[in-house]
Amino acid sequence: MNFAIVRYILGFILQFEGFFLILPAIVGLLYQETKDALIYFGVAILCIATGHLTIRKKPANTRLFTREGFTSVALGWVVLSLFGALPFVFTGDIPNFIDALFETISGFTTTGASILADVESLSHANLFWRSFTHWIGGMGVFVFIMAILPMMGGSTMNLMRAESPGPSVSRLLPKVKDTAKILYLIYIGITLTQIVILFVCGMNLFDAVTLSFGTTGTGGFGTKNDSLAGYSPICQNVVTLFMIISGINYAVFFCILRKQFKDAFSIEEVRWYLIIILASVGLITWNIADMYPTVGESLRHAFFQVGSIITTTGYSTTDFDLWPQLSKNILVILMFIGACAGSTGGGIKVSRIVILCKAIRKELDIMIHPRMVKKIKMDGHVLPHETQRSTNVFITAYFILFFASMLLISLDDYSFTTNFTAVAATLNNIGPGLDLVGPTQNFGLFSPFSKCVLMFDMLAGRLELFPMLIILLPSCWKKY
Amino acid sequence: MNFAIVRYILGFILQFEGFFLILPAIVGLLYQETKDALIYFGVAILCIATGHLTIRKKPANTRLFTREGFTSVALGWVVLSLFGALPFVFTGDIPNFIDALFETISGFTTTGASILADVESLSHANLFWRSFTHWIGGMGVFVFIMAILPMMGGSTMNLMRAESPGPSVSRLLPKVKDTAKILYLIYIGITLTQIVILFVCGMNLFDAVTLSFGTTGTGGFGTKNDSLAGYSPICQNVVTLFMIISGINYAVFFCILRKQFKDAFSIEEVRWYLIIILASVGLITWNIADMYPTVGESLRHAFFQVGSIITTTGYSTTDFDLWPQLSKNILVILMFIGACAGSTGGGIKVSRIVILCKAIRKELDIMIHPRMVKKIKMDGHVLPHETQRSTNVFITAYFILFFASMLLISLDDYSFTTNFTAVAATLNNIGPGLDLVGPTQNFGLFSPFSKCVLMFDMLAGRLELFPMLIILLPSCWKKY
Repeated sequence: MNFAIVRYILGFILQFEGFFLILPAIVGLLYQETKDALIYFGVAILCIATGHLTIRKKPANTRLFTREGFTSVALGWVVLSLFGALPFVFTGDIPNFIDALFETISGFTTTGASILADVESLSHANLFWRSFTHWIGGMGVFVFIMAILPMMGGSTMNLMRAESPGPSVSRLLPKVKDTAKILYLIYIGITLTQIVILFVCGMNLFDAVTLSFGTTGTGGFGTKNDSLAGYSPICQNVVTLFMIISGINYAVFFCILRKQFKDAFSIEEVRWYLIIILASVGLITWNIADMYPTVGESLRHAFFQVGSIITTTGYSTTDFDLWPQLSKNILVILMFIGACAGSTGGGIKVSRIVILCKAIRKELDIMIHPRMVKKIKMDGHVLPHETQRSTNVFITAYFILFFASMLLISLDDYSFTTNFTAVAATLNNIGPGLDLVGPTQNFGLFSPFSKCVLMFDMLAGRLELFPMLIILLPSCWKKY
Repeated sequence: MNFAIVRYILGFILQFEGFFLILPAIVGLLYQETKDALIYFGVAILCIATGHLTIRKKPANTRLFTREGFTSVALGWVVLSLFGALPFVFTGDIPNFIDALFETISGFTTTGASILADVESLSHANLFWRSFTHWIGGMGVFVFIMAILPMMGGSTMNLMRAESPGPSVSRLLPKVKDTAKILYLIYIGITLTQIVILFVCGMNLFDAVTLSFGTTGTGGFGTKNDSLAGYSPICQNVVTLFMIISGINYAVFFCILRKQFKDAFSIEEVRWYLIIILASVGLITWNIADMYPTVGESLRHAFFQVGSIITTTGYSTTDFDLWPQLSKNILVILMFIGACAGSTGGGIKVSRIVILCKAIRKELDIMIHPRMVKKIKMDGHVLPHETQRSTNVFITAYFILFFASMLLISLDDYSFTTNFTAVAATLNNIGPGLDLVGPTQNFGLFSPFSKCVLMFDMLAGRLELFPMLIILLPSCWKKY
């Protein structure tokens, strides 16, 4: 392990966080929350100073292998969360540090699972920071740094690989820096568009901004105790649309920007993503028809909840824990499927599911025609063996981590449904689950130990497992 | 598809079932249940006659490819169950055919999930047949036929492969026939030993025989409404021991028979199997200590339930649905792990779990040392790529089938826990689950549609998915 480079990168991250923290400070000033504003300024200075001290000594060797890349990203996210939690504690809105850390990790990982029973009691500065963490974490802080800074030469690709969701990183442009830049430009574009539309539809600016952060980052933190239930149907529909857009592989928007429309619509993963959404909405609308006065209303709620869960956002317009079991099970399955690779969403990812289904089909075909030579193809190209192997390993590691977490948090002795969906909602970065962690409930009931398990799951889910698993191995920490 | 050979094999199976059915008929005579005895004789004659008519015309081509092998085994098990259900209907003990079929498939697949609320009202003939189906299904009816008949030349290995559990078939002896024979001899030996010991410990002969069938077959049907709760602790402990023995890879017993003790104890899978059992028993004993008067009693119940669930037998000595959530979750996870490959148990199998964990470890090691060349080894040998691939495909197909089944049965609108554990208990061939399908409950509550889904799961679980999946593909049924 090249410790110097990891230290250097962590210092960088911390400085960036310092600059990010100035925004909620300004929001605090605007809303005359002087104490909170000063605290945010203070923590910002703390981050910048600590970061500065850490990067003073440049590392002699700036080579970045997978090991260093993955470790930097994993630790980077931990450091980001540790410092990001401080304002919640200092302002007194979340006095317990474990709880504040849970909330911050939930923010950065775009999970949206909260330990707060009363969100509305938070100051504007805190509400803004909470939602802003979603936006920072959605596209990724390393991707952000790569977009604006000329990083020390070498394989920064390893940083991108550790932070970007999906079985393989799609390099949109030959240079990592250019890819990162175009991704962030699209991201900012979508966010601004949503803010404007929500504002035009009558939402106040503060809510429009925070909800848009939560939507494009596929996070799920809102500013109201009933999530989105209190907003007008038109605003809810706008959020539905933007959630579904945010779950799409960003390669699609890139192609559209370049006017390569044929390429944009030929991506298999996106086709399946939309098919799954439509099928789920159809089934749920039929299943919940009795519960709402009109079919239109059932359809609106079905669309919102399906969009919210498959993109792993986690907003809600209704308490879906009261829905019939079929609808709830559909939502649970969507939690696992997740959004497209290369989007800001979490979960297993549609492309992995497609790859795995094709592997099953291939196996059956080989049984029927033993002499057939068949390769798995995606988007017309033969899928590299590497990608298949890593997909298989991912799915195994995923389920092992899932069941291990379920076992650990069951020490709290809550129901099976609570345990199962709490892990599903955190590992897939969704937010609400069912039963005691349903959309009208929160994660405050868990013991500090269970909260730590779920925090690990949120980070593991956001970073696609391996960065968080690798740092658990002693051999990762050996010096060269 | 070579339809002639499939037809021929199905005829054979049916004839064998006819002979098997004579045993419960004799039991009926012994217990003066004349009507039931006559019905069993009648169905036996029906099977033998139908089988005879079916095999009258020998197939011109006796080559048995994977496709024909897998299709024969899948359909063979369906035919076996369809005819095996008839006595339950005709005797009036289970008048509804769907229910009778559920009970029979549950028997043959060694699941032990029952639709009966009152088992004790059944006649002796029916109780015997119910348990005997476990014994026939445990080692497999095709294996039985191969053991005693010189099958038409060619690759009968494909039949064995479709019916034997585990990622690869361990050929104990060069010839399939000899392997099948030695497996059945060990199987009969273990069964007889258990019968004798239970009888000596004071159990009546009928119960000793039926419970031994259920134990060595890892089935779970008993003759009492409270499963094994009413028997003496010594009898319960004997059953615990034999359940755990029955979950061990039969290659171990083969080595012991040949006095190759070193080989017997060097099998990695068996070591992990025992470690998992001991760890689970330890945790559960600690977790349920408050619920029973002495530690000894907690230990006995923990050992029994762990042995019962990991071997996928499904007997119970206490209502574990009342245990704390940690213990219940341990049992749920054991449901998935299952027994050893090459045993009569179900589930994913310990060897597959070990292979998958090694693949994760390898992936992480490669990330740390990118230039390292590492191969996955089992028992000191490099694991063939084929086995790894089929294990990966298995696990994916397994979880997809799992979630699809959960979705389908949730139409009945029972709780999440009920749906989840009902599928876990049938797909892994266990028997009881939690909540409404807990150890004191039964599967009678489900709709006929859900029962059909669960029947498919039981068959898919017993035949390790692929035979049941392949017959769903239209291309499987194309003529050459």
